[in-house]
Amino acid sequence: MSKIITISREFGSGGREVGKRLAEKLGYAYYDKEVIEAISKKTEIAEDYINQVLEHRIVSYYPISIATAFDAFSFDPLLEMNQSIYTAQMEVITSLAMKSDCVIVGRCADHILADYSPLRLFIYADMDSKVKRCRERATEDENFTDRELIKNIKNIDKGRANYYEQFTGNKWGDIENYDLCINTTKLDIKNIVDVIAAYVSK
Amino acid sequence: MSKIITISREFGSGGREVGKRLAEKLGYAYYDKEVIEAISKKTEIAEDYINQVLEHRIVSYYPISIATAFDAFSFDPLLEMNQSIYTAQMEVITSLAMKSDCVIVGRCADHILADYSPLRLFIYADMDSKVKRCRERATEDENFTDRELIKNIKNIDKGRANYYEQFTGNKWGDIENYDLCINTTKLDIKNIVDVIAAYVSK
Repeated sequence: MSKIITISREFGSGGREVGKRLAEKLGYAYYDKEVIEAISKKTEIAEDYINQVLEHRIVSYYPISIATAFDAFSFDPLLEMNQSIYTAQMEVITSLAMKSDCVIVGRCADHILADYSPLRLFIYADMDSKVKRCRERATEDENFTDRELIKNIKNIDKGRANYYEQFTGNKWGDIENYDLCINTTKLDIKNIVDVIAAYVSK
Repeated sequence: MSKIITISREFGSGGREVGKRLAEKLGYAYYDKEVIEAISKKTEIAEDYINQVLEHRIVSYYPISIATAFDAFSFDPLLEMNQSIYTAQMEVITSLAMKSDCVIVGRCADHILADYSPLRLFIYADMDSKVKRCRERATEDENFTDRELIKNIKNIDKGRANYYEQFTGNKWGDIENYDLCINTTKLDIKNIVDVIAAYVSK
């Protein structure tokens, strides 16, 4: 059976870096945005919209690219569409995980793949450290004040928490849903990845 | 400066085993009950009573061995005595940590030693796994039903959580107070200790 590592992460905590490095070190497949692409392909719904649903941001419009995805007489097309995203999300994640050893970032993969005993990581950090990381990777045209940036980080994590809770019935970031919770504020990501890789390889 | 590892742990999660193995592997000093002994020596208060205060169990008596610890006319001798335990707890833990590299289990050491940047571990497990571990290490005269055992485990952890919250103002078991949270339910303690030791030695 495939070895599976799932990564849930606070925005700006370096969770993606952990995932990428871990996959590289172990020679595992790495799935992050690929999950969204595959759901989009399966459902014919725009990637942007899927992203919004999965990050639980409120949506007030129907994405243009989905004209054929539901008929005009359905009772609640938005609900129906979101339902098809949830279903595709489960199918896509399960199918990717069955292909080969892999690292999957976000998208409730820990819960979806529970029967396959994934190693479930939660990556987090304190706010100062997350702000610093966001600044380092920001593009030139990003001009957020610290206050705006903190608000954004909180909103994104709130969306992730809400979606996780709705989808799984569990609390996002609560230790009992994970095998290892790693605070990247003071720990060296490269070193911690090395030791997780060593643990997985044992 | 000393390298310090603090371990907070749910009852029955194997936190003590993690601490002992880690200290052994790294050649660090290991402090667990030694903290209580040292506080007792410093305050002349009975170890059993100190243990009860630190585990936040309600006490309705004055331990016999403390006759000289306060005079009969104090306003609230119990409060005064507990205060002297808190003070001694801080002094003892700081003093032990300054001696040499060490692993300290429980007793709010993570908070007391915050200025010395300890590696703060939280060790936990699911209830089934904790019950199993308690059964394995039980003495022959322990005849708890599962229900009683679960109640005991919950009570002990509740006491630890209350004491931690009262002493530190923070929530016990909340990820933000730790660097690494390790769920021992499915992980192999020996292997995980090896990799933490490898991380610390880097």
